[in-house]
Amino acid sequence: MLTDVEIAQSAKMKPIVEVAQKVGLDEDDLELYGKYKAKISLEAIKKLDQNEDGKLILVTAINPTPAGEGKTTTMIGLSQALNKLGKKSIVAMREPSLGPCFGIKGGAAGGGYAQVVPMEDINLHFTGDIHAITAANNLIAAMLDNSIHQGNPLNIDVRQIVWKRVVDLNDRALRHTVCGLGGKVNGVPREDGFDITVASEVMAILCLATSLEDLKQRAAKMIVAYTYDGKPVTVDDIEATGAVTLLLKDAIKPNLVQTLDHTPVFVHGGPFANIAHGCNSVMATQLAIKLGDYAITEAGFGADLGAEKFLDIKCRQANLNPEAVVIVATVRALKMHGGVAKKDLGNENLEALKAGLGNLEKHIENIAKFDLPCIVAINAFPTDTEVELQLLNECCKKLGVEVAISKVWEKGADGGIELAEKLLNILETKEANYHPLYDLDLSIEEKIETIVKEIYGGDGVEFTKKAKNKIKKYTEQGLSQLPICVAKTQYSLSDQASLLGRPTGFTVKINDIIPSAGAGFLVAISGDIMRMPGLPKRPAAVNMDIDEDGKIIGLF
Amino acid sequence: MLTDVEIAQSAKMKPIVEVAQKVGLDEDDLELYGKYKAKISLEAIKKLDQNEDGKLILVTAINPTPAGEGKTTTMIGLSQALNKLGKKSIVAMREPSLGPCFGIKGGAAGGGYAQVVPMEDINLHFTGDIHAITAANNLIAAMLDNSIHQGNPLNIDVRQIVWKRVVDLNDRALRHTVCGLGGKVNGVPREDGFDITVASEVMAILCLATSLEDLKQRAAKMIVAYTYDGKPVTVDDIEATGAVTLLLKDAIKPNLVQTLDHTPVFVHGGPFANIAHGCNSVMATQLAIKLGDYAITEAGFGADLGAEKFLDIKCRQANLNPEAVVIVATVRALKMHGGVAKKDLGNENLEALKAGLGNLEKHIENIAKFDLPCIVAINAFPTDTEVELQLLNECCKKLGVEVAISKVWEKGADGGIELAEKLLNILETKEANYHPLYDLDLSIEEKIETIVKEIYGGDGVEFTKKAKNKIKKYTEQGLSQLPICVAKTQYSLSDQASLLGRPTGFTVKINDIIPSAGAGFLVAISGDIMRMPGLPKRPAAVNMDIDEDGKIIGLF
Repeated sequence: MLTDVEIAQSAKMKPIVEVAQKVGLDEDDLELYGKYKAKISLEAIKKLDQNEDGKLILVTAINPTPAGEGKTTTMIGLSQALNKLGKKSIVAMREPSLGPCFGIKGGAAGGGYAQVVPMEDINLHFTGDIHAITAANNLIAAMLDNSIHQGNPLNIDVRQIVWKRVVDLNDRALRHTVCGLGGKVNGVPREDGFDITVASEVMAILCLATSLEDLKQRAAKMIVAYTYDGKPVTVDDIEATGAVTLLLKDAIKPNLVQTLDHTPVFVHGGPFANIAHGCNSVMATQLAIKLGDYAITEAGFGADLGAEKFLDIKCRQANLNPEAVVIVATVRALKMHGGVAKKDLGNENLEALKAGLGNLEKHIENIAKFDLPCIVAINAFPTDTEVELQLLNECCKKLGVEVAISKVWEKGADGGIELAEKLLNILETKEANYHPLYDLDLSIEEKIETIVKEIYGGDGVEFTKKAKNKIKKYTEQGLSQLPICVAKTQYSLSDQASLLGRPTGFTVKINDIIPSAGAGFLVAISGDIMRMPGLPKRPAAVNMDIDEDGKIIGLF
Repeated sequence: MLTDVEIAQSAKMKPIVEVAQKVGLDEDDLELYGKYKAKISLEAIKKLDQNEDGKLILVTAINPTPAGEGKTTTMIGLSQALNKLGKKSIVAMREPSLGPCFGIKGGAAGGGYAQVVPMEDINLHFTGDIHAITAANNLIAAMLDNSIHQGNPLNIDVRQIVWKRVVDLNDRALRHTVCGLGGKVNGVPREDGFDITVASEVMAILCLATSLEDLKQRAAKMIVAYTYDGKPVTVDDIEATGAVTLLLKDAIKPNLVQTLDHTPVFVHGGPFANIAHGCNSVMATQLAIKLGDYAITEAGFGADLGAEKFLDIKCRQANLNPEAVVIVATVRALKMHGGVAKKDLGNENLEALKAGLGNLEKHIENIAKFDLPCIVAINAFPTDTEVELQLLNECCKKLGVEVAISKVWEKGADGGIELAEKLLNILETKEANYHPLYDLDLSIEEKIETIVKEIYGGDGVEFTKKAKNKIKKYTEQGLSQLPICVAKTQYSLSDQASLLGRPTGFTVKINDIIPSAGAGFLVAISGDIMRMPGLPKRPAAVNMDIDEDGKIIGLF
């Protein structure tokens, strides 16, 4: 059996210029990064305004388990299948962070015969977007600390600096630091800390911006600290708006690559969905809608995180109108949700599957709350038994939801035909009336409570004193109209990673609220979620290598 | 008068494919980054092995002053002029760091009508090389701290970690930090600190590597820490060699851009010369030598730093054979070396010029110690008077050295014809017998003393106790055969920034010695030189901006 990187390396890619031509972009619309990657120029994007909109489909999933659910792979295979059926389908997806790539995951561009290539480049520096975000974020931090060092004309309270530095790596030693040590010439000492780049507000504004001008306006508004009298200090106050926008001038342009079948994929922007809003850029999604009859996009982790944020933040802000949702699940992962250990997943276990199905059911119910039709895609494994699949089928039938078996990992486009055909049928026969879950007029508490009760299935929310004070402060500052971006474990519908399946009778604890005034949302931090991951005992990095001839191993 | 960025923006660039063709590279040899930037593939480089070598010329300068000496501008204009004379001349130069760009300098791709374009891209992220170096450096740090956190199997002494994290920004608040705070799940607390990326050993090995395999071997040897029993711990010990090489797989390929006259320029690798070895990559220099009849390269800051390291480290390691040296000076800067304040430089001042000429004289004498012919290039300013220029001429004549007036900033190639013609004459008439200044067999102390006495003109060296202990330790570890890379202020021939002109009667204090076992040199840290610059009161960044149409201001 070939590994993902071996399949990707043996792929015969088409020049990206040819891939672009298939969707109506010519060479002048592109900025090439080698032969197989290109950015789309901002002029080209403006020209597409008058194009008709294709249909927007969201691919989401059950809560992830160590068994893997294969959401990205399914999405890519689905698009390959739609193209094989003669439909113009385009994927818009997130770009991977180096953190998980060198940590646990090893790569994130699909798998098997449903991959996006060149996978090595996509998984490493790609076109430099995330590095540009890191630089922009850290320039703000340097200018902020410099302003304090040079006499502190803005009266910044060093105990109230909210702007973190970032690196695009899993580096737990940087979570809590003290900087500015070493005496007078080396800055002002203060508590500090680093987040991973993909959790940063700069990543969020890049993903939500609709133009360079919009990006600049969002950058200007980002809050970096508070003064001694409690007033917010913004990026504009420290005079960094122009430089930050300049650093992001290329990163804002969506990147075009291809699937193994040479169908177009935009890979652009990559916030995590547990600690950030979890969706690729609005500009990439818009491009896919304007150039494709079908725009297939994903949102990170389970539907409680990625899909909720896609529907309540991204679609609301960008006036997007999704028409269907695909929920990806595996029999194996559902059995894990039913309490089976990873090593026993190869055995048939109907009891466990039945118990675990609650997780899928809850996500199906949730999508209905946005008045969107959905379909369940079962990412098939050889260990799945007929009886297990039948049980799953019955469960979905009871909820009035179609199920399709996907074998795109093994068979590429051919393995996704069933899913593609059933999806097309749903788009023709079922009505979509997308609306967000909650009104922006609700109070901050009410919005968080709505998400917790309606989406997570919890009994209520417990706000710490710190969170309550923040809510009061932000309400006074006029920020209560913003939507909510919950930072929460991805493993459970609750805020406790160990509560699998469909937990009930829990409350969610909100420890802190952080305003992302540029992105336009409030981050509600639940439990002990950290915005900087750590490396495992044996990081994926230790198995990576490249030989003299440029052959790469260890990415998967 | 147009600004540099305005001149660059009004330039009509040629597609980089055309620029490459002029020197015998075809499209398949290139990896395009947009229409005007390309990396040269490693396969293409291998094919050139049999080409004959062109003549290698180093451009260096007097000690820099706030008046500016225009070394890079002169180098670019010289190459433009050689091309205009029908010679195939190629520049190999460093790529700018974001730190000084957003700090004081605003940009570093030449000036006026002697510029390298696209200057905005070159000054910002360019092809991502420096970001890749930052990521590789910081992955090593994350894996190192992770190894300690996960049970410390290598027995690393957290008080003896020598590997710094880096950012490519001027950020003084990161010079001295404490990381790993926040309790057990957040790593092990220890003293830490950040350098600027261009001072990192990863930058050094990228610039000194002759192939991907050589780079990997150098990466493996880099020392990151010491064990409790004093043994070095390397990148290979923490199993990061493969991943680091993988992260640098594209960064190692030289970047091709063009001058305003469409002549080829390789911009690749950018270590500072005060805190690092100050030369662009060996691979870029080799490419220029193999593809051009004349390869023009530079080394950072004054000849005491950049040129000395170019000749004693880079040329020695890479078997390069330079044939002439150009020393750039300005009348204004020499007057500053003679004690004139910046605001008074517009006035004729023969006394000050006479006093300041000592600085130029010393550098001329120094180049002779490597048995290389040199020529002085006077970067002309409108305020220079005839009498001043005559005085300068006489001084050089006394030393047997030719002088040429360069007006490349104002006139491009035409302003460099005199310099180009005189240089060609020197190459034909004067003998070059390049050899390094010192033998590697000398002790560490003797090597440092040789540089201080012969090049800086000092009386001797004072080693701190710490430095002495380090010397003893590294000698025992078999590292005493390495050449020396002095970290020293660029403003003075001494280690005290305020001693301008040609100081005498000083000793140089060496505080610390840091081995760069992968790069293959020992860094001797003099005075209070810092490897992380700070931002000034009004950073250049505050004046930078980009408008809706992509028009950039504030880079110069």
